[in-house]
Amino acid sequence: MTRPTVPSPDGRVADQLRFLLEVDALKGVLRQSYVLDGSRRENSAEHSWHAALFALVLAEHAAEPVDPSRVIAMLVVHDLVEVDAGDTYVYDDAAQATRAARERVAANRVFGLLPADQGPRLRALWEEFEAGVTADARFANAMDRLAPILLNFVNDGRTWRQHGVTVGKVRARNANVGAAAPALGEVVASIVEDAMDRGWIREDEGEPCP
Amino acid sequence: MTRPTVPSPDGRVADQLRFLLEVDALKGVLRQSYVLDGSRRENSAEHSWHAALFALVLAEHAAEPVDPSRVIAMLVVHDLVEVDAGDTYVYDDAAQATRAARERVAANRVFGLLPADQGPRLRALWEEFEAGVTADARFANAMDRLAPILLNFVNDGRTWRQHGVTVGKVRARNANVGAAAPALGEVVASIVEDAMDRGWIREDEGEPCP
Repeated sequence: MTRPTVPSPDGRVADQLRFLLEVDALKGVLRQSYVLDGSRRENSAEHSWHAALFALVLAEHAAEPVDPSRVIAMLVVHDLVEVDAGDTYVYDDAAQATRAARERVAANRVFGLLPADQGPRLRALWEEFEAGVTADARFANAMDRLAPILLNFVNDGRTWRQHGVTVGKVRARNANVGAAAPALGEVVASIVEDAMDRGWIREDEGEPCP
Repeated sequence: MTRPTVPSPDGRVADQLRFLLEVDALKGVLRQSYVLDGSRRENSAEHSWHAALFALVLAEHAAEPVDPSRVIAMLVVHDLVEVDAGDTYVYDDAAQATRAARERVAANRVFGLLPADQGPRLRALWEEFEAGVTADARFANAMDRLAPILLNFVNDGRTWRQHGVTVGKVRARNANVGAAAPALGEVVASIVEDAMDRGWIREDEGEPCP
């Protein structure tokens, strides 16, 4: 590699800039969702921006009081570990089973690039998002789910169809949207009904046909 | 277009979701900068995420007190008008001359998609960024400049070389980084020196050769 090193007279600034350049790789981590015009799959960097914008616009619908600025910061960092661990499709059970362990190793390295007093602060935001226990984290997780559901629906259920996703799974994975924001949960419920009517989401196996 | 309409029982939610889907187009607006690995130009959606992360990590270097959460929100919305107006290269003087007018028309339409009480609030954040008068806006503008400078430098000055950019222009356009954050201004100054030594940034025309 002949890549030049960013000159920085200050070690702290140098570490911060190295981190910011390293996580540029998130622009190359592809998710299952397609962008709205269907031309390509979206990457985790642009998804992070989109989810943050969802939070900025939709915070008023939160079921509990949330701090939108914390939710937005959480969404800006929520996928950073994918730089090492890659994106794990929400309906891929095998990959989901190993996700937490893979992402923990990634978090050690990625947040470890930052100065020792700063890395843990950003990592704590990510851990809070992952735990999904606080009101801010619950709302952030809802935005992270709602964005791809909308994109997938307006792309004729493409990702659901490609992966043969069943309705039980879709409802289970997206229940957090309604819990965090009832008005948005209604939208998700309508989308799932509509997508089933159109045949984009399968009935659960073993479920009797109507 | 056979694209299905997102079902929403609530007119306000419907307007908000329509806005959020409409601005997905930012993922298709290409900038002059390349992503770190040089494989392609970056788009304005992933750049917005990256600039927001720059603010989150580098806020401590602000010359004046800033509210990082306002800076981050500003960076999340700062390029939304490009959905209609496209990206205007910072060193393209002809396009820069018409940028403000083009972006104002775009802002009328894009922010106008939101509910009447919400659109103006988001637009005000964008206007503040554009005016660059408040401390938050000055720091946000510095992050918006710093991110592509770093990417461009580690890509062997590719964009500067392609456009034959001169040092006077680079220094003038990026002076805001040092004004908003002196430690980061030093980094930019070192990068510009180094890039000149390597021949990636041209001397100003009419400037005597050393």
